[in-house]
Amino acid sequence: MKTLSTQDVIYAFSRLNNPVMHVQPGDTVSIETYDCFKNQISSADQEVSAIDWNEINPATGPIFIEGAAYGDLLKVTIDNLEIGDQGVMVTGPELGVMGHRMEKMESKLIPIKDGKAIFNEQLHLPLNPMIGVIGVAPEGEPVSCGTPGAHGGNMDTKLITKGATLYFPVFAEGALFALGDFHAAMGDGEVSVSGIEVPGRATVTFDVIKGLHSKYPVLQNADGVALLVSAMTLDEAVKIAVEEMIDLLLPHTDLTVSEMTMLMSAAGETQISQVVDPLVTVRFFVPQHVLDSLDIKLFV
Amino acid sequence: MKTLSTQDVIYAFSRLNNPVMHVQPGDTVSIETYDCFKNQISSADQEVSAIDWNEINPATGPIFIEGAAYGDLLKVTIDNLEIGDQGVMVTGPELGVMGHRMEKMESKLIPIKDGKAIFNEQLHLPLNPMIGVIGVAPEGEPVSCGTPGAHGGNMDTKLITKGATLYFPVFAEGALFALGDFHAAMGDGEVSVSGIEVPGRATVTFDVIKGLHSKYPVLQNADGVALLVSAMTLDEAVKIAVEEMIDLLLPHTDLTVSEMTMLMSAAGETQISQVVDPLVTVRFFVPQHVLDSLDIKLFV
Repeated sequence: MKTLSTQDVIYAFSRLNNPVMHVQPGDTVSIETYDCFKNQISSADQEVSAIDWNEINPATGPIFIEGAAYGDLLKVTIDNLEIGDQGVMVTGPELGVMGHRMEKMESKLIPIKDGKAIFNEQLHLPLNPMIGVIGVAPEGEPVSCGTPGAHGGNMDTKLITKGATLYFPVFAEGALFALGDFHAAMGDGEVSVSGIEVPGRATVTFDVIKGLHSKYPVLQNADGVALLVSAMTLDEAVKIAVEEMIDLLLPHTDLTVSEMTMLMSAAGETQISQVVDPLVTVRFFVPQHVLDSLDIKLFV
Repeated sequence: MKTLSTQDVIYAFSRLNNPVMHVQPGDTVSIETYDCFKNQISSADQEVSAIDWNEINPATGPIFIEGAAYGDLLKVTIDNLEIGDQGVMVTGPELGVMGHRMEKMESKLIPIKDGKAIFNEQLHLPLNPMIGVIGVAPEGEPVSCGTPGAHGGNMDTKLITKGATLYFPVFAEGALFALGDFHAAMGDGEVSVSGIEVPGRATVTFDVIKGLHSKYPVLQNADGVALLVSAMTLDEAVKIAVEEMIDLLLPHTDLTVSEMTMLMSAAGETQISQVVDPLVTVRFFVPQHVLDSLDIKLFV
């Protein structure tokens, strides 16, 4: 298995980035990641103001997947996800939903121990390890790793975890895949602006799908399928996510648009991923039993 | 046990409505409800255009709870929820997220059979029976039963089901409680503008809590606590819901605002209830294990 270390990171997804590794479809790679602060916060006493804010959200990569070309889909299966044993959270003025109530930047170290995040003596939180930043080079200008979009990026979505398969639209030759920004735990919304940020290691397997397209990243797991949309507002993102999902499923069925819309209203779920990045991210989720009943197999 | 039939319905929550029943704190009432179309759609051939749109979202009530006064909380526990065996969905132009793709109003009858909603021969959907409209008289002008708000109303929230306890701010003497608009199944978002609409019967127990207040409805179930906020946009509703929840929990803990915000970011969930009513509804949810760890018991 190939491995990639944190020696090679990017701070923006871009078609102009030089790949640091070339792989074939079917290859599996083990990728080491910094936390979103490039592991800069290592003690409780450390002044958050001492952080170099130019080194935020490093993503390890980019990886060139042979054969991936504009208009294809890059399939990425997350085979495994390991996280470090030291988490950190931050919040402060102008950050997150509660920024107007904060007087200064604050950080908090959160040890990861015995499968729990030790918030304090009272609060031992369950873990839901996940990948915050994951994606490919975008279509146009470079996009900071702190911002999500159709190329993926900082989608901060809980479902992006071990066992999930993601499908990204490919905009650049080789796709130029990278990932980083793992969280030991995060709730939908990520309301403070950070999850429990941790370094880690992901094992992923790549494939290239020719002749099928999606405008937005799609995630498949054992529970169902989700379409991930980032936009300026939640309201806008929801409208796009619902319509794109309906248009994704419709050609696989005999249902009319009205019937499919009713079905999605009865059984589909409109969910929030994060509300604190430069664009917000939502997902529209359809349970696997609906896909199975309709005999829908996506992207095969 | 007292019972209330569909003979007494309102189409707007209002402090000016005449109560049709008086109960004491601790009383349990069995309340019969129409579906949101007042059971007007009874055959597949029926023209939706024949519906009387003045008779939409009837709520059975209002019930005067003795002792409930401005500034109190009305506690309503949903002891039981029964639904009819004939569901109906509608969608059409200008309705829901996909209204721009619809050419005409359409309805669809959906039998409820053997614990499933029979969408068609292929699709037998699991049920999640819930109450769409539930609330008390609002503070100011009457509010249509189709619109949600701080008084409750058309919140279309999946969590409002058997076993849940709701806390409503009381704005009028006796609270003037009513409910209706049951769904046999609905996904978060209610994207077509309707769930699987059914008539039914709810059994609820009332209590009045003096000296404690909440600006918005709060829901407690076995999984945790949710604060329900309706606003013009999802983005606005999310901001309010997160801050109100933090202010609800903070006085019960030794945490700072920064710490509580981090905790909510790691363990709280920002969730969408519906995106299709005149105001949209979101909820911020905190798992019970967090409340238990902090030894927080709300409204006792």
